[in-house]
Amino acid sequence: MSANIVDKQEIVVGVDIGGTNTVFGVVDLGNNILLENSFKTYPEKGADDFFNRLAGIIKESCKSLEAGYFLGGIGLAAPGANYLKGTIESSVNLNWENVNISKMMKKHFDIPVAILNDADAAALGEHVFGVARNMKNFIVLTLGTGLGSGIFVDGHLMRGENGLAGELGHIIIEHGGRECTCGRKGCLETYVSARGIKRSVSQFLSASGAPSELRNISFNELTSKNVFELALKNDRVALDVFNYTGEILGKALANVVTVFNPEAIILFGGLADADELLLKPTNFNFEKNLLNMYKGKVRILKSGLQNGKAAVYGACEFAKQSMVKNTVELQKFV
Amino acid sequence: MSANIVDKQEIVVGVDIGGTNTVFGVVDLGNNILLENSFKTYPEKGADDFFNRLAGIIKESCKSLEAGYFLGGIGLAAPGANYLKGTIESSVNLNWENVNISKMMKKHFDIPVAILNDADAAALGEHVFGVARNMKNFIVLTLGTGLGSGIFVDGHLMRGENGLAGELGHIIIEHGGRECTCGRKGCLETYVSARGIKRSVSQFLSASGAPSELRNISFNELTSKNVFELALKNDRVALDVFNYTGEILGKALANVVTVFNPEAIILFGGLADADELLLKPTNFNFEKNLLNMYKGKVRILKSGLQNGKAAVYGACEFAKQSMVKNTVELQKFV
Repeated sequence: MSANIVDKQEIVVGVDIGGTNTVFGVVDLGNNILLENSFKTYPEKGADDFFNRLAGIIKESCKSLEAGYFLGGIGLAAPGANYLKGTIESSVNLNWENVNISKMMKKHFDIPVAILNDADAAALGEHVFGVARNMKNFIVLTLGTGLGSGIFVDGHLMRGENGLAGELGHIIIEHGGRECTCGRKGCLETYVSARGIKRSVSQFLSASGAPSELRNISFNELTSKNVFELALKNDRVALDVFNYTGEILGKALANVVTVFNPEAIILFGGLADADELLLKPTNFNFEKNLLNMYKGKVRILKSGLQNGKAAVYGACEFAKQSMVKNTVELQKFV
Repeated sequence: MSANIVDKQEIVVGVDIGGTNTVFGVVDLGNNILLENSFKTYPEKGADDFFNRLAGIIKESCKSLEAGYFLGGIGLAAPGANYLKGTIESSVNLNWENVNISKMMKKHFDIPVAILNDADAAALGEHVFGVARNMKNFIVLTLGTGLGSGIFVDGHLMRGENGLAGELGHIIIEHGGRECTCGRKGCLETYVSARGIKRSVSQFLSASGAPSELRNISFNELTSKNVFELALKNDRVALDVFNYTGEILGKALANVVTVFNPEAIILFGGLADADELLLKPTNFNFEKNLLNMYKGKVRILKSGLQNGKAAVYGACEFAKQSMVKNTVELQKFV
């Protein structure tokens, strides 16, 4: 540590790499947010291009801060990221395979870089900055294109043997059910996700004879937002789809409570913004299927953090924890 | 600490309270087993009677040890036990409700008494003395009258918000399925347990036209051991029942791996003794339903510890951990 650094205040950067946008934030060690920003990911340009741009933007942003800070670590959240290996193994959203993030960042930075799954980052973010402050046992579900989850057990983010624990999106809830990108059938995320909502529209258009605006939109044109807006206008099929999604989610979450005995479950991401349309049937089926001892005692909450922000601040937190606890372990990656 | 205790070596007692037998063991702090014993529980005589007898037997046993030891703590494992409250809340096997174990033991002993669920005790026992030595992420299933589970996450026994986490026996695997003692329908233990095996016999006797010795035994007379012995003699219905049980167990365990990313799953208790009859269909359906990245990588093992012993040594271990870590917390109970 050089002499001039001693007088400076340490900061960390947290980055959430998404399929469309990459969001990042800078916090000091007292969790004060100094800067927030975002830019287009353009994953189709490849991982090399992305990490070159990311490094440039981080360096520019840190320069823009008033003097008196130094960058001590970087936390990167990405879909499909493995914190033990420092890699993105495979990501449907980014369409990257076997990208060694740690190696790429090492070209640009000589400081610890910690990698984690985006849903785990969201859970850490909720724990430090969001509705899960002071909670020891909680589950964050990220309801976006897919369904991700980050799980706190007894005060710690659950990791498992290979850093892959907590993939609730790939619990099989119906054997022989919908085909999943994982190669199996009936995974929870084929029903409860933005993509799942679209598939449920097709299912209800075939099962029901009711007239619906949804009959005028092709599968590829359709978005879960369309379904949401039509449900608000009392479109029967759109309402059925939300009730069906909530039923499946509520039943699954009742099992999740049996397994984890959490204080709360937090819903995060685009689909969670459907609010009562999704929350009402979810809560109804959740309570109905809970073990008696849990009825009325486990809350399903909506994240209070702005979309994308929980993962950014979670990545900051992970960077800080890694700097303190895992310096040796991290040197393996960077 | 009095002067003469300083020269003595500390020991702890672990007790596993079962519906028929209560087993206990004494270990020193180096995990050497000094004594093992068991006696009839007679739960029908009530909890007061039981704990009076237990206290007497513990005191007698400790006296029988050569001089040079002093009893530093007691760990009690029981079905339905809650370590946070020090109570048995409700236990189908013991037919006791709201028994405050801590209070009862305080009448007899002025040392820390730690209470835990019997399946959690089995997991701790496997961790210290059994096949899960050196494992950080594993799951122990106790397959007896019911289905219990103890789960290690990242090196620690998972507890959850109220000490009730890890009830895999009460995951609903079939909505609208078999009635469960918990008041709901379709819980895993209504299929995969000694009782579940008996119910499956009835199901297959109705579904199949095959001749079977099982048609000569009433439901109440039937034991899972009968089914096991007939399956060894190639009784078609008995074999179907084991294949069906293994299919349900294998599918459920594949989901458990998706959630916990464990190194291994350990089967423990009477039903696990059916060995290949149960393990073969379990393994087949487990591998078939695993996420690709886990195929061939997660082992299903049989406990190497004698029946009942894992919980006893787990209770010893819990007592030791509690003496060190939770002395303050435990004083609330004792």
